[in-house]
Amino acid sequence: MTDRPLVIVAPHPRTLEMIFTPDALAAFRERYELWETSGDEIAALPPERLAEARYLVGQPDLSADLLGAMTGLRAIVNVEGNFTDNMPYTACFERGIHVLIASAVFAEPVAEMGLGMALALHRSIASADADFRAGREVWGLDGNGSARLLSGSRIGIVGFGDLGRAVNRLLAGFRAEVLAFDPWLPASVLRDHGVAPASLDEILRTCDTVFVTAAITAENGHLFDAAAFARMQPGAAFILLSRAGIVDFPAMLEAARRGRIKVATDVFPEEPPTADDPARSTPNTLLSAHRAGALDVAFQRMGDMLLDDLTLMDAGLPPARLRRAERETVGRMRSKPVSKS
Amino acid sequence: MTDRPLVIVAPHPRTLEMIFTPDALAAFRERYELWETSGDEIAALPPERLAEARYLVGQPDLSADLLGAMTGLRAIVNVEGNFTDNMPYTACFERGIHVLIASAVFAEPVAEMGLGMALALHRSIASADADFRAGREVWGLDGNGSARLLSGSRIGIVGFGDLGRAVNRLLAGFRAEVLAFDPWLPASVLRDHGVAPASLDEILRTCDTVFVTAAITAENGHLFDAAAFARMQPGAAFILLSRAGIVDFPAMLEAARRGRIKVATDVFPEEPPTADDPARSTPNTLLSAHRAGALDVAFQRMGDMLLDDLTLMDAGLPPARLRRAERETVGRMRSKPVSKS
Amino acid sequence: MTDRPLVIVAPHPRTLEMIFTPDALAAFRERYELWETSGDEIAALPPERLAEARYLVGQPDLSADLLGAMTGLRAIVNVEGNFTDNMPYTACFERGIHVLIASAVFAEPVAEMGLGMALALHRSIASADADFRAGREVWGLDGNGSARLLSGSRIGIVGFGDLGRAVNRLLAGFRAEVLAFDPWLPASVLRDHGVAPASLDEILRTCDTVFVTAAITAENGHLFDAAAFARMQPGAAFILLSRAGIVDFPAMLEAARRGRIKVATDVFPEEPPTADDPARSTPNTLLSAHRAGALDVAFQRMGDMLLDDLTLMDAGLPPARLRRAERETVGRMRSKPVSKS
Amino acid sequence: MTDRPLVIVAPHPRTLEMIFTPDALAAFRERYELWETSGDEIAALPPERLAEARYLVGQPDLSADLLGAMTGLRAIVNVEGNFTDNMPYTACFERGIHVLIASAVFAEPVAEMGLGMALALHRSIASADADFRAGREVWGLDGNGSARLLSGSRIGIVGFGDLGRAVNRLLAGFRAEVLAFDPWLPASVLRDHGVAPASLDEILRTCDTVFVTAAITAENGHLFDAAAFARMQPGAAFILLSRAGIVDFPAMLEAARRGRIKVATDVFPEEPPTADDPARSTPNTLLSAHRAGALDVAFQRMGDMLLDDLTLMDAGLPPARLRRAERETVGRMRSKPVSKS
Repeated sequence: MTDRPLVIVAPHPRTLEMIFTPDALAAFRERYELWETSGDEIAALPPERLAEARYLVGQPDLSADLLGAMTGLRAIVNVEGNFTDNMPYTACFERGIHVLIASAVFAEPVAEMGLGMALALHRSIASADADFRAGREVWGLDGNGSARLLSGSRIGIVGFGDLGRAVNRLLAGFRAEVLAFDPWLPASVLRDHGVAPASLDEILRTCDTVFVTAAITAENGHLFDAAAFARMQPGAAFILLSRAGIVDFPAMLEAARRGRIKVATDVFPEEPPTADDPARSTPNTLLSAHRAGALDVAFQRMGDMLLDDLTLMDAGLPPARLRRAERETVGRMRSKPVSKS
Repeated sequence: MTDRPLVIVAPHPRTLEMIFTPDALAAFRERYELWETSGDEIAALPPERLAEARYLVGQPDLSADLLGAMTGLRAIVNVEGNFTDNMPYTACFERGIHVLIASAVFAEPVAEMGLGMALALHRSIASADADFRAGREVWGLDGNGSARLLSGSRIGIVGFGDLGRAVNRLLAGFRAEVLAFDPWLPASVLRDHGVAPASLDEILRTCDTVFVTAAITAENGHLFDAAAFARMQPGAAFILLSRAGIVDFPAMLEAARRGRIKVATDVFPEEPPTADDPARSTPNTLLSAHRAGALDVAFQRMGDMLLDDLTLMDAGLPPARLRRAERETVGRMRSKPVSKS
Repeated sequence: MTDRPLVIVAPHPRTLEMIFTPDALAAFRERYELWETSGDEIAALPPERLAEARYLVGQPDLSADLLGAMTGLRAIVNVEGNFTDNMPYTACFERGIHVLIASAVFAEPVAEMGLGMALALHRSIASADADFRAGREVWGLDGNGSARLLSGSRIGIVGFGDLGRAVNRLLAGFRAEVLAFDPWLPASVLRDHGVAPASLDEILRTCDTVFVTAAITAENGHLFDAAAFARMQPGAAFILLSRAGIVDFPAMLEAARRGRIKVATDVFPEEPPTADDPARSTPNTLLSAHRAGALDVAFQRMGDMLLDDLTLMDAGLPPARLRRAERETVGRMRSKPVSKS
Repeated sequence: MTDRPLVIVAPHPRTLEMIFTPDALAAFRERYELWETSGDEIAALPPERLAEARYLVGQPDLSADLLGAMTGLRAIVNVEGNFTDNMPYTACFERGIHVLIASAVFAEPVAEMGLGMALALHRSIASADADFRAGREVWGLDGNGSARLLSGSRIGIVGFGDLGRAVNRLLAGFRAEVLAFDPWLPASVLRDHGVAPASLDEILRTCDTVFVTAAITAENGHLFDAAAFARMQPGAAFILLSRAGIVDFPAMLEAARRGRIKVATDVFPEEPPTADDPARSTPNTLLSAHRAGALDVAFQRMGDMLLDDLTLMDAGLPPARLRRAERETVGRMRSKPVSKS
């Protein structure tokens, strides 16, 4: 017998150990009764326990009936990183059940990787290191043929959600002119963040560096195609941080191969690409194996955010840290669920 | 016959085309009479022309007699980047001749390279790219074993002159705890720049990232030796941006080889190192062939600074952009002059 | 006949001319069909028009039946500044009708007034001006007995919503130590804004300046009482910017009268206070007749925010600028509606 | 017998107690042998003591002979706030004696007063308080007829030395467009501080707020005359923080009297003005009796700066905190010495 609130825990493909620091996990276990289960076994829980559950941590498939049985539910916390079409969101909204997601934890690590990639591309950090090890380094000014500064340059950010904002924040010290494009936000919100609203075309045509941070949606597949790359500044850097589907990948690689632009990407249409995938051998690129956000410290911040918001909801207050699913947009997302972290 | 002020120009190893944009060079030629010469031929100029010269652009060897002959001289502008012991500085100070240097132009490009190197080390950007091309990349979380964030971390800056300040400025968006050590500055000046004054020992023992930006002086040769590296945090990044002489290079490489720390360096005791120099094959390092500051846009800013300050001095005002040699410190510097840009 | 979306407009006590610039109002009229009415006449609209209305601008009393008749309603936009208990919010939430408010427009003007008051109190700007006009000014150091700097000082902000954040933003250049107390937010959110989470007691005991920006709620009436003022630093400044009910007014005035603290207030328990109200003659105070937010430019920003969010909602996207009523908190607010602007 | 360095101390019109905190004064006395004297008695010191003196704290009249007798002198530290024409500066420069001044301590307090005055003018803080006490306050929007926001506005700073920079720093949180005019600085230095270089005319014609921070020089007497005020925006605020001589005072008062502009001033042509001086009764003004910089905490920072720089000079390093007299400009200043603090 306990009077601690009941939390159903089905965090697959995460584990509690992954999304909590040891201290936070101890606090979570101390303050709540956890029913640790898997998605396909939730339906088998006793009805009185389902009715008692205050929170659900995880993003299991949920039928309308099952959700209906969870009569005391206040929030569902997605710990995967993307909303998928596997639960009756509308019923949640009607009942005032918050559907929350901790994806913001990835913004900072991905933004740092993105900035590191941009600097590495513009200053040839990786290729010059390889050349040095091979004994063919070029010294001083001669080795800086295509080098560019970010400071004082024009930088574009496509998508201005958590990740785009994190990229912009890291640029604070660069005195750059930052342009942002986000069709889901009014220009005023962009200006409030100190960036200049711009069309995608203006960003492509005028920026030395373009960070792609937009989530993939029903509308923006292959937003960046051969025509888009053709409009970019010669020698500009294109940094793909969000999802491969937003880009015509062969067109992007071709633009890099021809030396028109430099490309860095953390994501690929198929992960991993095959051994003979041209991505592996295209020059003027920088490749990262979906590692930008997957830091242990990032995952562990999920637990902190979760504890903070459960505390608020326990006190009858709205959550303040996790992001909420929106009625208007939850159905527009097109990310595939990940099978591993 | 002209009434434009006379400038003796002996910029070797730079050229005017290197240190001016075309527009700025046209303005320079328009506003001044330039006597373009080389260091060893200045003495051969007619005495009345020497007497007439208002400025000397370059850092040629100057005897006391030759300086004495330049009776109208207001300033000497070093465009190499370091003061060397080849002219009678004391006589300049007595006569109120400003001895100026444009080394600040290198601060921003070197700082960007330094930040890029730090991000590349902490996120394995270069080595993971090499692995990806070789078909042995590791995906997601598994590929991030030693990854660290700069955001929210503790970062040390050794030397807080132009370069140290530029590094600190680039860190503005990282919400990091920045510690700085500079024995030539009081703690209050460091605090005014928003960094925490610290001892070198505290920086070594507690920082995840250490940027070395200190000029080499009579006192700080081999400031970083085996004992220093042994005190550093396991896995910390050591970024050498200033001069190789400040470091015990074999000790630094050994610390990297043993995996204790990660090292990036833009400078080497001998440049280039021999083909079999161990620096070329040490793991956990990132190598750059003295390329951090040698950007065309950096050199070309020299001309802008020079024109600005000549304009001020023409108006009887003190220079405001170029840095002045100081009586106290000009003799303490130990940089070797560079033979090429 | 029109195919523009129908908006029911009942903005009393505002007018459209007050909450829109002329250009924005023209755009509003161009893009929407406006049915301009008053709160008590909405129920008399033809049922088909009620069913057709996409938005309601204003905060009229709404019965459940009337709301039920507005079957196409997507959002209600409160232009008064506080939510009041005069409509069936729960039904709105269930139906996904956004209940929005433009109160953020007041944050910036109120924050500026607050900072101006703080500087005026600490530097005796108003009282020294009065003394100067009366010929009894005190010069230089002698006239600065109780003067304090904000720069480098410890400053407390009570309540960290739109207004508290605006105050904090204005303090960006002061290098102050800013503490914030907000029981509705986790410490992490405060830290993300660069302020130190603190208890109310710590703020009272240690800050030289305390800005009160918290909305009045069911829980915080007379949060600042005689005991609270007794804990404050001698000579500290107490700036009341939100609602008079949060303070024991006589106790506040008494603390000022005794010279323990300095007080500035923009709000009063009864407005206006009677002619002989002691507030009018208490020394060490600075009085403002509920003028801090009531700027024409502030009201006119309401229209911009409204147009931005209607544009988003027209496109099937969630609003991004106006603040939403929350199920958890909309019933906790206790502000009286204003009868005039 | 002592081996502590000798410091001649003649700080009139300051005292050591005024320019040092007790702790700093104890440290000063501990580390140095102080010869406390007055300006007209220095010449009477024994020659061997004069020869021994390493530093002189104060700004006494010094003859060439007397300076010549101080053969070991490294620095003269002016603690008054302005250089005056009472010592052989050229001989100091030739000998490498630093002539230093602690005037930077006043920048922060004066800037805070200036910002407080600007906010008070634009929001009628002082006059509305007076009206409230007199029972004639005007509530809400009606009481804000001429109110303006600094946020997002255009602000001019005339003179961009320590004080102008301090004003600009305080404006960091206001998202304002800051223009600066300073004929002694190139545009690039202004841009480096994040302000837009502008002509005086552009500032006068376009800014809502103008801060005058320029020192009075040989060239800028009555820089602001009737024609200048006539060009200002109606309702703009003119904040005079530096010296009265830079302004045609009757013209300034007349512009305020006619309601064209609002004026705040901390300085007056004669201090104090006579009892019937029109300055005392001009409407639309805010008057301060030369109190902006005269804070005890400001004076006491002089001692900290002095100790820091003496420490550096003791170590053979150049001073880093106090400002140095410049050969080019030291003779251009026209401030009268102050007779009291």
